[in-house]
Amino acid sequence: MDLVTLLGFAAGALTTLAFLPQLIKTWKSRSARDMSLTWLTTFIAGVALWFFYGLLIESSPVVVANGITLGLTVPILYFKLKYA
Amino acid sequence: MDLVTLLGFAAGALTTLAFLPQLIKTWKSRSARDMSLTWLTTFIAGVALWFFYGLLIESSPVVVANGITLGLTVPILYFKLKYA
Repeated sequence: MDLVTLLGFAAGALTTLAFLPQLIKTWKSRSARDMSLTWLTTFIAGVALWFFYGLLIESSPVVVANGITLGLTVPILYFKLKYA
Repeated sequence: MDLVTLLGFAAGALTTLAFLPQLIKTWKSRSARDMSLTWLTTFIAGVALWFFYGLLIESSPVVVANGITLGLTVPILYFKLKYA
């Protein structure tokens, strides 16, 4: 793997795994009042588009990062709708 | 501009502008208790890396989207540190 792709994967690892502590915090506190519903829904729609963009430009970091981000943010949206 | 780049810009517009309602909400409510500090700091570090990755693969949507996202998330981190 070349260095540029490695940088992309490092970027993707950070912006993706970042949502793990948020998901755990929201799950444990059962509170998502301070999170904007508009932010969450718009962000998730955008992440889905990034996923397809990544497929089209054949950028594996973009595809993998956004695929995992979807898997972490959709449950946060679920908690937001359930608790806040 | 080709359709693929247009899709990238649409994706970037959504994941970027998504942070505007969050920033406004945090600013108005003066509360960021439900947002994870680990999420914010890790996410911002990742967005900075995406910015450089975008420069290296010459993807203008990646560069522009992550540049603006930095400009919207750093103030949210400031409010988080100030209020929460």
